[in-house]
Amino acid sequence: MTDGLHPDVSELQLARVLAALGDQGRLTTVQALARLGESDCTRLQADAGLDMSRSTFSHHQKVLREAGILHARIHGSQRMLTLRRDDLNARFPGLLDAVLATPA
Amino acid sequence: MTDGLHPDVSELQLARVLAALGDQGRLTTVQALARLGESDCTRLQADAGLDMSRSTFSHHQKVLREAGILHARIHGSQRMLTLRRDDLNARFPGLLDAVLATPA
Repeated sequence: MTDGLHPDVSELQLARVLAALGDQGRLTTVQALARLGESDCTRLQADAGLDMSRSTFSHHQKVLREAGILHARIHGSQRMLTLRRDDLNARFPGLLDAVLATPA
Repeated sequence: MTDGLHPDVSELQLARVLAALGDQGRLTTVQALARLGESDCTRLQADAGLDMSRSTFSHHQKVLREAGILHARIHGSQRMLTLRRDDLNARFPGLLDAVLATPA
């Protein structure tokens, strides 16, 4: 994951991860992504019931990607998103499970 | 805890708790408080090695108190702080342990 877009697992910072998760829209995004698995961003926004503009949702994706919480890849005309579950579990054991256990 | 200064445990919101923890100074404060137990705020700031102004530290205490993470009480001329560990564990099982397990 040394593509310049995604921090390496060794670079993940707890305060930054918590700050990225500390927004209701981003928290709902992460919880939906955990439920759905890899999703294109248009479908994810609809399935998560995220009532916000495309540009706001894009901004949230960027914050989550830069904190190391999700991975984005381009596939055709779609942006495919996945939760970096293994990386988060390796770096911050138990954190993601605790966050996902509480309904947003 | 219905004193108007501290949210009841039923009112704690995950996104707000995560946002409050998502700052290096506040995270260090919480980790020091977990280690020290109830502490007056002057000693806590020194023991945590928090190199910031008193007013910045006061602001961080307020954010943590309003999110439901710490409890403040006045004792003589001191403000005594405690982590609301039981309330956080009741509402968000595993979250605090995961946060405290990672060095700030």
